[in-house]
Amino acid sequence: VKRLRAAILGATGIVGQHFVRILHDHPSFQIAALAASERSEGYRYYEAADWVVTGEMPLNVQEMVICGAAPEDLLPRGVDVVFSALPSKEAGHIEQALAGEGVPVFSNAGAHRMDPHVPILIPEINPDHLGLVHSQDRGSGYIVTNSNCSTSGLVFGLKPLVPFGLRDVTVTTYQAVSGAGRRGVASLDILGNVVPYISGEEGKLETEPKKILGHFNGDTIEDAGFEVYASCARVPVLDGHLESVVVTLGQEVDAVSVREAFSSFTGEPQALGLPTAPNPPIVVESQVDRPQPLRGLSLSTGDFGMAVRIGRIRVKGNRVSFFLLVHNTIRGAAGASVLNAEFARVKGYLRAGKGVIP
Amino acid sequence: VKRLRAAILGATGIVGQHFVRILHDHPSFQIAALAASERSEGYRYYEAADWVVTGEMPLNVQEMVICGAAPEDLLPRGVDVVFSALPSKEAGHIEQALAGEGVPVFSNAGAHRMDPHVPILIPEINPDHLGLVHSQDRGSGYIVTNSNCSTSGLVFGLKPLVPFGLRDVTVTTYQAVSGAGRRGVASLDILGNVVPYISGEEGKLETEPKKILGHFNGDTIEDAGFEVYASCARVPVLDGHLESVVVTLGQEVDAVSVREAFSSFTGEPQALGLPTAPNPPIVVESQVDRPQPLRGLSLSTGDFGMAVRIGRIRVKGNRVSFFLLVHNTIRGAAGASVLNAEFARVKGYLRAGKGVIP
Amino acid sequence: VKRLRAAILGATGIVGQHFVRILHDHPSFQIAALAASERSEGYRYYEAADWVVTGEMPLNVQEMVICGAAPEDLLPRGVDVVFSALPSKEAGHIEQALAGEGVPVFSNAGAHRMDPHVPILIPEINPDHLGLVHSQDRGSGYIVTNSNCSTSGLVFGLKPLVPFGLRDVTVTTYQAVSGAGRRGVASLDILGNVVPYISGEEGKLETEPKKILGHFNGDTIEDAGFEVYASCARVPVLDGHLESVVVTLGQEVDAVSVREAFSSFTGEPQALGLPTAPNPPIVVESQVDRPQPLRGLSLSTGDFGMAVRIGRIRVKGNRVSFFLLVHNTIRGAAGASVLNAEFARVKGYLRAGKGVIP
Amino acid sequence: VKRLRAAILGATGIVGQHFVRILHDHPSFQIAALAASERSEGYRYYEAADWVVTGEMPLNVQEMVICGAAPEDLLPRGVDVVFSALPSKEAGHIEQALAGEGVPVFSNAGAHRMDPHVPILIPEINPDHLGLVHSQDRGSGYIVTNSNCSTSGLVFGLKPLVPFGLRDVTVTTYQAVSGAGRRGVASLDILGNVVPYISGEEGKLETEPKKILGHFNGDTIEDAGFEVYASCARVPVLDGHLESVVVTLGQEVDAVSVREAFSSFTGEPQALGLPTAPNPPIVVESQVDRPQPLRGLSLSTGDFGMAVRIGRIRVKGNRVSFFLLVHNTIRGAAGASVLNAEFARVKGYLRAGKGVIP
Repeated sequence: VKRLRAAILGATGIVGQHFVRILHDHPSFQIAALAASERSEGYRYYEAADWVVTGEMPLNVQEMVICGAAPEDLLPRGVDVVFSALPSKEAGHIEQALAGEGVPVFSNAGAHRMDPHVPILIPEINPDHLGLVHSQDRGSGYIVTNSNCSTSGLVFGLKPLVPFGLRDVTVTTYQAVSGAGRRGVASLDILGNVVPYISGEEGKLETEPKKILGHFNGDTIEDAGFEVYASCARVPVLDGHLESVVVTLGQEVDAVSVREAFSSFTGEPQALGLPTAPNPPIVVESQVDRPQPLRGLSLSTGDFGMAVRIGRIRVKGNRVSFFLLVHNTIRGAAGASVLNAEFARVKGYLRAGKGVIP
Repeated sequence: VKRLRAAILGATGIVGQHFVRILHDHPSFQIAALAASERSEGYRYYEAADWVVTGEMPLNVQEMVICGAAPEDLLPRGVDVVFSALPSKEAGHIEQALAGEGVPVFSNAGAHRMDPHVPILIPEINPDHLGLVHSQDRGSGYIVTNSNCSTSGLVFGLKPLVPFGLRDVTVTTYQAVSGAGRRGVASLDILGNVVPYISGEEGKLETEPKKILGHFNGDTIEDAGFEVYASCARVPVLDGHLESVVVTLGQEVDAVSVREAFSSFTGEPQALGLPTAPNPPIVVESQVDRPQPLRGLSLSTGDFGMAVRIGRIRVKGNRVSFFLLVHNTIRGAAGASVLNAEFARVKGYLRAGKGVIP
Repeated sequence: VKRLRAAILGATGIVGQHFVRILHDHPSFQIAALAASERSEGYRYYEAADWVVTGEMPLNVQEMVICGAAPEDLLPRGVDVVFSALPSKEAGHIEQALAGEGVPVFSNAGAHRMDPHVPILIPEINPDHLGLVHSQDRGSGYIVTNSNCSTSGLVFGLKPLVPFGLRDVTVTTYQAVSGAGRRGVASLDILGNVVPYISGEEGKLETEPKKILGHFNGDTIEDAGFEVYASCARVPVLDGHLESVVVTLGQEVDAVSVREAFSSFTGEPQALGLPTAPNPPIVVESQVDRPQPLRGLSLSTGDFGMAVRIGRIRVKGNRVSFFLLVHNTIRGAAGASVLNAEFARVKGYLRAGKGVIP
Repeated sequence: VKRLRAAILGATGIVGQHFVRILHDHPSFQIAALAASERSEGYRYYEAADWVVTGEMPLNVQEMVICGAAPEDLLPRGVDVVFSALPSKEAGHIEQALAGEGVPVFSNAGAHRMDPHVPILIPEINPDHLGLVHSQDRGSGYIVTNSNCSTSGLVFGLKPLVPFGLRDVTVTTYQAVSGAGRRGVASLDILGNVVPYISGEEGKLETEPKKILGHFNGDTIEDAGFEVYASCARVPVLDGHLESVVVTLGQEVDAVSVREAFSSFTGEPQALGLPTAPNPPIVVESQVDRPQPLRGLSLSTGDFGMAVRIGRIRVKGNRVSFFLLVHNTIRGAAGASVLNAEFARVKGYLRAGKGVIP
């Protein structure tokens, strides 16, 4: 099978590096262009990127020359699909421009997530939301987003509980510094400290899950009817967002049922055997003190950072408490969009030459 | 005024060191005996204690010889009052034995906290609970406990909200390693990590606040009627427990009222001007990213680690969210019991020669 | 005694904050002006400075309005002396301009340190070097620098060994992140890591000690004749540079003599009882695993971060090995320049109205 | 080829876990027995071992039952070779007993390293030292040790410089907490701190390299003639010992020659293509701020933690300075002994049924 030609926007940052790491030897995609900010344009990738993700910079990208992210930079390179790790501010118009030119864009940026025509797709959870791209009316081009990094973990903790009725959700986070970008958190602020504030984060956690778990009526998405109360903090951890979740359900449950709901959960990506799909998507931890960012998030584990880990399930009446862990720059960012593209390809939304809406 | 002769049990540990630090130049108490485990007995304090709390070991205790903690070790030394930093397991019978011999015991140990005759005293919050010691029927001897370290912060976040009606409380903690004792947390477990489990901690947070905020009818304490849902984690922080709290109230409030309730809160220790009482007891932080363990907990600040710091107050309907910070080994341990003893002295429950119940 | 009117340049950074902390209630100086970069000008100090040093921002500076650092900004305020925490790049011409207008400048910046007319003054070590300011020929104005932060510790480890003959020095550092400024080290680079490179640092350690320990012949300084081999690394520590030092001496010594040389070392600031002078200037640690950044550097200790701590003295033939610890932003920066100004004042080089060269 | 049956002693600790990780799917060895302390005997491996090394516990060892380490426990299991991760104290007699029964023992313990009949083998550096086992006179049994973890890095920095004449070596270390074992370093001692003392470590660094680089005359080893001055410190890093090395050579060199000496260095394990041999054994880093423990030590890199990384080469006259990095529990422990056994097998010192001395 011919591999689709992919461009990575914001390729030098942490999420961009993960896109590179995952796509450099991907069965369905090949890296055709690496785009970054003007400051990096014209430099070779090994000169422009300070590689900080696991392993070493793949040999086959080291000499690639960084180009611009505009349609006129990318279209001549025969790009079939775009993965965007741009900062939200820049992502807004660049992604629109590319989609307007017929290019499917899979984006980690927050710019378009709450756009009523743009899905926040997590194919294990709301695969039907992919259909929302028809409403974008851009010919073969469209924008599909992955959720905010914290949200990407939380919804795996909520979806299996939907049958019990979700009434409200209290979530408190322990977020890794990599979520703030390469130099986002100064060491003087976080060494031996916790910072109980992350700009904009609580708002995302309180709105995105309602859209993701919302009902797609074929035309628009109706938000799910529960409330989220989020409190977000940064901790001195490199990778992996840990979240303490307390859910009020519509009925009383027991811990065994909850555990079973999590461990038996699976989705279309698993059924389809998509390359990046973890199987199972939720790992229920049996050790009493797990999940922990330092254990089990290693890329040496079988899921390569794509599984969400849940542990310490406790039930009192209709309240379920647990901790969950998500690799913020993989399942919460680059890996999420790659999985979305894999899913879109299998569903006929991507093909060589140009994107396509079936 | 003659200073009362105090013994410190478990004097070599972290909480014991804080007792030493606070009491070595206290206006109402003098250190008459330092007791510790058999392993340390007979050694001088500077040999037995690996001093890790702020500043340097006070000169006037360095040469004191460690003695045993039993009545026969302490009574001959003319001890008027005992401060206990013993491990719970040992605290049970030793504290009982001492109280049985007529000695007032102010204890940080968990052993007797849930005993219906023993108050968990926080004089800003439940000063009347001191009266419960009459029910112990031990003559001049009695046991008064301070709360668990996490609880000691939480209840300052709850008491000012009582007028609005406390329905339920969800609390998630970020706890410092000093809370686990001198070698309690191995570096391999916590460097760059978060451990979402602390043995027994969630149970304490779910029960102690209901007793502390309970009604003392002159005879017994009736638990307060709200539920607590606690999730506890250890973070790579040296000192200071941060807590994310979400309270469901019996009515809708606005953030200004909540902030005012916290900042205007005060208590008897402040009115009495007790030496260890912080004034105000709650510091409401105005910076958007506070409170933080690394900022404001320094003993160079005016409250010497005794104030509870609250910030990031958010309100949605009848839900109030905020973060609070408590110095776990001072307000959450040694400082708390010293304040209790100061309060008991002023109230006539302590005097030279022996404890007294007025 | 009338207190001299002091301006602090670069007042919002970490070193600037230490200047503020030390000078806000100093017996010989009062803060007359706080200057910082254009970005901060016109703001009140509490708005412009993100206070991160120990304790809380002093009340008497919170409302001061930040001004510019040029002579026309400062001279109208009747400034008698300037303390500079400017970045080296800006310090060069601003300090020259101020000195040219007759103002004595005590600077932490590297810009003028290697100027043959400017002393790197450490009054315990080379008090006579103050006389070098006469050669600056600027009337009452002059520039006196303190050394680089690492150097400020190293020379206390060398000076007492001069009688044994200094042949060469190998020094390897463990440097705190505060040395790189407020946002100088990104958390992703240093959490759980060591970075064996600090731009320009090894050069400073290899040249400054030879000037500081050089001979002042009344006219110029002749460098001392030993070589320094420096290797510098950043470690995940907030404050305090630890240094491993191996000195080759001109003769064999024994460890007792070396220890005695360090512990008996004292200088003019101690004899004069200067307010900021630690006594003794070198603390020889007796515990086998000291000095440590986390222990003994607290401002609660008696020396307020001004003493250099030395431990683990080992001798093999004519090689002496030891570890030393210096508080990089106090003895290695702000405190050093304050001590220099105190010394200059007592020596008649500073007086109200204007600086003076006697 | 039949795989040799291997026993791992001390299998539950960190080094033991690395032995398990490396050997569970090794082409020449299979795990036949897992031995540990009495406390663990009889438990299954997954129950007894708190797995903390990268990845997840291999499936094929999870159910193995821990046995004792004595000959009567191991011999009935048909063990061909033993890998020892025992604490030195226990290693002494157990390893002797096993070797006495004809079993070849490859040991990470320090107990026998300085025994004149036991080689400290590093096959890239002193392959001929393997011949020293003939002098042990134990029939088919013998003991071969790997060096101390810090030494294992240092000698790779020294061997390539031998042609220039080694006169003396000053080494200062930044050592990871994993080197002290599972609970060896308490978090309260190392969070935000550096501890400049590791019991016994400096002595090992000052003696082992002289034996390893010594001359084997076919009968005994004559120590190499240079001096080592070592200073060792623990830093808050999980894995990887960084070392700052300054070597005085017998002649002046230039940096290019030194770099070339390191980068062209290779050895027998590379020529033989041994499974665990890194190729090249020394990676010379070109980035100005490398090597760093957090970058490049990941098991995702091609050398699986077996290469030594060298960077920041600086030369002044006949002094060469550089930093080197070694994975302390792999190249410095388990991986080193596995490589030794691979080398011994190819050289005919190991065969199924029993060890053999050719």
